[in-house]
Amino acid sequence: MRFVSYLRDGIEGVGLVEGDRLLDLSSLYPTMQALVEAGDGGLAAAQRQRDGAASGWVDVEDVRLTAPLPRPRRCLFCVGLNYQDHFKEGDATRQGISSLPEYPAFFSKATGTVIGPGEPIGWPGHLSEKLDYEAELAVIVGRRGRDITAEQAESHVFGYTLANDVTVRDIQRRHGGQWNKGKSFDGTCPMGPVVVTPDELDRTQRLQAEVNGVLRQDCCLDLMVFSVDQLIASLSEGMTIQPGDILLTGTPAGVGYARTPPSFLQPGDEVVVRLHGIGQLRNTVGKDLGPLPTC
Amino acid sequence: MRFVSYLRDGIEGVGLVEGDRLLDLSSLYPTMQALVEAGDGGLAAAQRQRDGAASGWVDVEDVRLTAPLPRPRRCLFCVGLNYQDHFKEGDATRQGISSLPEYPAFFSKATGTVIGPGEPIGWPGHLSEKLDYEAELAVIVGRRGRDITAEQAESHVFGYTLANDVTVRDIQRRHGGQWNKGKSFDGTCPMGPVVVTPDELDRTQRLQAEVNGVLRQDCCLDLMVFSVDQLIASLSEGMTIQPGDILLTGTPAGVGYARTPPSFLQPGDEVVVRLHGIGQLRNTVGKDLGPLPTC
Repeated sequence: MRFVSYLRDGIEGVGLVEGDRLLDLSSLYPTMQALVEAGDGGLAAAQRQRDGAASGWVDVEDVRLTAPLPRPRRCLFCVGLNYQDHFKEGDATRQGISSLPEYPAFFSKATGTVIGPGEPIGWPGHLSEKLDYEAELAVIVGRRGRDITAEQAESHVFGYTLANDVTVRDIQRRHGGQWNKGKSFDGTCPMGPVVVTPDELDRTQRLQAEVNGVLRQDCCLDLMVFSVDQLIASLSEGMTIQPGDILLTGTPAGVGYARTPPSFLQPGDEVVVRLHGIGQLRNTVGKDLGPLPTC
Repeated sequence: MRFVSYLRDGIEGVGLVEGDRLLDLSSLYPTMQALVEAGDGGLAAAQRQRDGAASGWVDVEDVRLTAPLPRPRRCLFCVGLNYQDHFKEGDATRQGISSLPEYPAFFSKATGTVIGPGEPIGWPGHLSEKLDYEAELAVIVGRRGRDITAEQAESHVFGYTLANDVTVRDIQRRHGGQWNKGKSFDGTCPMGPVVVTPDELDRTQRLQAEVNGVLRQDCCLDLMVFSVDQLIASLSEGMTIQPGDILLTGTPAGVGYARTPPSFLQPGDEVVVRLHGIGQLRNTVGKDLGPLPTC
């Protein structure tokens, strides 16, 4: 099954998608988070609603898709250096780290990073002009657990979507080696457009990023250093994962900083993250993020 | 003013504390989070309730204090290496980092770490026996803002409390240099006992940690490398901070791993974090965290 979160006439909803049409599930669950928390019962209820729905379908184009989980319950769990080719392309700029981590390099992105398809990526021009894209597969956790084995991991997955782990490169590197700050700027995590259940994910497909129509990243999902199952096992060691938790699984080679010469994003640039079976996540870099009113 | 979160007959409440007595504020706000979100109006309402309260006070000992924000809205923001003496004591074990970070080393702890006074610290004995304490001053954000200057920072602070940034040392260091994983084990962030408004914080006081009655950490708050105001300014660059956000401000020298020989926590050890004006945060290391039922 394929699910989306959306706004229609300003009202939030969650729906099931088939082709170009959408079935509103809001009479069952008000939000994607509620659907996820309902577990297997939620999927069964969605299936029943679908099977009984002679009418009630609308055109996907008539709603505005949002991020699948527009207000995550807690920060996003992320992993760095999880594709061999991306690790290698960073050799020139990485100080003193010459072998792949033995354990996943987990870090987090703050919740205020999350934006939906089509929303402008935050441009922190008053602080840095080194904004970079990172196409990633994102896992939505479906079931609570701790010390989950790799063998059990898939049963804790609600589904998969796409993410763009937009990064302020110089700021990522200047905070004592911890990546949290440069990864947590407002509006730097586009997510969507669709959440697919695990049976719909084809791991032989290629994860791609295009910038202004030019292919920049293009890699098979099965070239991850740590598989999704291994990541869930490692992340959940001693730490309970919860329904609605989001795990970004790392980016392949082709990011802007590692190009010759380096090529960072500018306002107006369009980034498309793509995976056959999930779709396209398209966002344009916005104008200056600027200061919020602080009153 | 001094505030606590508590359970009484199983019901959650928020209260104002004076000496040994507590005034329930739950008719105004159901939780500390709601009080914090109410901003200056919340403080004024609490003051009015206090001034009109001839009766209604109970003994603090008749309630069970919880963490001030027992279910944080998002991960805890933390900073490493923020006391000169703690940085120095780590020289022997730190690889290749010989000068203090120019910018704060921000990382995060997951929300499931938070426990209250008296609750058992998670013991991850099935994974590691290198559990360490870190006494810290914690900031509770009161007002939303981004790109806040150091001069404006104090007006964004709701109050201060104590935290113990309990760390699984070997796991902190093995995940590609990112500290998130070793800092995010369940039950590894005792917080409390009281939140004091900024006017009640005496920055000349000493932040202390005792293990089984022996003083291990003892340092003046004004020896931070980055002051609270500077931390808020740096953290909020390009990232909106929100009411109820928690910022741990780093730990001084005296942690277990840097002792000769190293001395880690064991089940049954009692850790007390103390700061005159806030009080004592007392927790005992529990039995094995063990696996959660994963059904």
